[in-house]
Amino acid sequence: MNKNEYTTIESYMISKMNDSAHDIHHVYRVLNAAVDIANHTEAVSMEILIAACLLHDIGREQQFANPNLCHAQIGGEIAYEFLLSQNWPEPKAQHVKECIQAHRYRSSNPPQSIEAKILFDADKLDVCGAIGIARTLQYEGHTGDQLYILDKNEKIITDGGGANKSTFFQEYNFKLKKIYDTFFTEHARNLAKARQKASIDFYNALHSEISQNYENGRNFLCNKQPSGAPAYK
Amino acid sequence: MNKNEYTTIESYMISKMNDSAHDIHHVYRVLNAAVDIANHTEAVSMEILIAACLLHDIGREQQFANPNLCHAQIGGEIAYEFLLSQNWPEPKAQHVKECIQAHRYRSSNPPQSIEAKILFDADKLDVCGAIGIARTLQYEGHTGDQLYILDKNEKIITDGGGANKSTFFQEYNFKLKKIYDTFFTEHARNLAKARQKASIDFYNALHSEISQNYENGRNFLCNKQPSGAPAYK
Repeated sequence: MNKNEYTTIESYMISKMNDSAHDIHHVYRVLNAAVDIANHTEAVSMEILIAACLLHDIGREQQFANPNLCHAQIGGEIAYEFLLSQNWPEPKAQHVKECIQAHRYRSSNPPQSIEAKILFDADKLDVCGAIGIARTLQYEGHTGDQLYILDKNEKIITDGGGANKSTFFQEYNFKLKKIYDTFFTEHARNLAKARQKASIDFYNALHSEISQNYENGRNFLCNKQPSGAPAYK
Repeated sequence: MNKNEYTTIESYMISKMNDSAHDIHHVYRVLNAAVDIANHTEAVSMEILIAACLLHDIGREQQFANPNLCHAQIGGEIAYEFLLSQNWPEPKAQHVKECIQAHRYRSSNPPQSIEAKILFDADKLDVCGAIGIARTLQYEGHTGDQLYILDKNEKIITDGGGANKSTFFQEYNFKLKKIYDTFFTEHARNLAKARQKASIDFYNALHSEISQNYENGRNFLCNKQPSGAPAYK
């Protein structure tokens, strides 16, 4: 891929990301991770991989407008049409499309080619470690999700039990902590493992700080109020 | 303060927080921390402290509607009028007002009474450690701020230099990391110090993960492209 081809695909990506700096930063991190993984992997088509990385999330806008749509499915279709319009040979455009359509974590369509596996791994790396924590918290702030929900004993609900709202603790336990077992390439698995401690440490610190705070408050407010004062909580 | 009085003030607080679970959770954490600090401090009026904690952020709605207003100043006034309407003696309502008006970090009006100092400390504790990181990231997700901005060498700008947009890295360096020196009470200072490592570790991990990602990508995309292919970035 020469610089002009790169810049054309990059500009198209930026136009489709609706100027969301969050999403564009994510795309560059996925691209950076993917070329790093490819550098440690045999027989990778960089042309396919780079196009697939740049275009992998261009269906987000459609999914946001209609949550029944899958951004990977629709993004693959849009990328395919775009690459054909740029005079890419049909088999290569098809290959990029298949990479994009197989990049979702929760999917019945696992990646087949090495380029598809690398895109999948590079995208999943961005859910690992401190960056995965930061993205999850920012996303929840954007959608208005709560950090936590408490049960009737003021303990944090970590498994979603009884809670029909998404929280950080639920997202961590249902997705973030499980991501480390999902990698296809050895280099990505190693990169992910190097990030895992930061994620676990943060989760444990957050759980401990909040739990301790409520415990200290509850102990005082329920049991140790100034002599003679009735319980007020 | 008896249970009825507590419930009346709590209900008023909830009505003024516009049903924002984020903000209400913060209020309870501040209350929990404050009674814990009070439990380690001499001669604290729990009645004043609990009312001040419950009501300390009720001016947020007004500040959000008009950023020129200070939520501490206006919240103190609203709390004062509310407590008078509940037949509180004027000096006590005035004391609560003064606590609320002195609770901001960036303020020329430092807390004077022990109850005002404890409210200030309890509020600042919620900016320490993992909870401070989580709240900052969620807030930035809500306002659409970016996680980071890169300079022309793709290094993270950590000091805000050249960036007129707020980022997580800027907020950490301008506020979060400095908060540990601002406490008035010994117990709060100890609680804050116990949380500090989680915050530093997360920041360093995030900085390292992002920096390494761009470095790996840049090295490949700029210097190590497949033989014969021109630079495409």
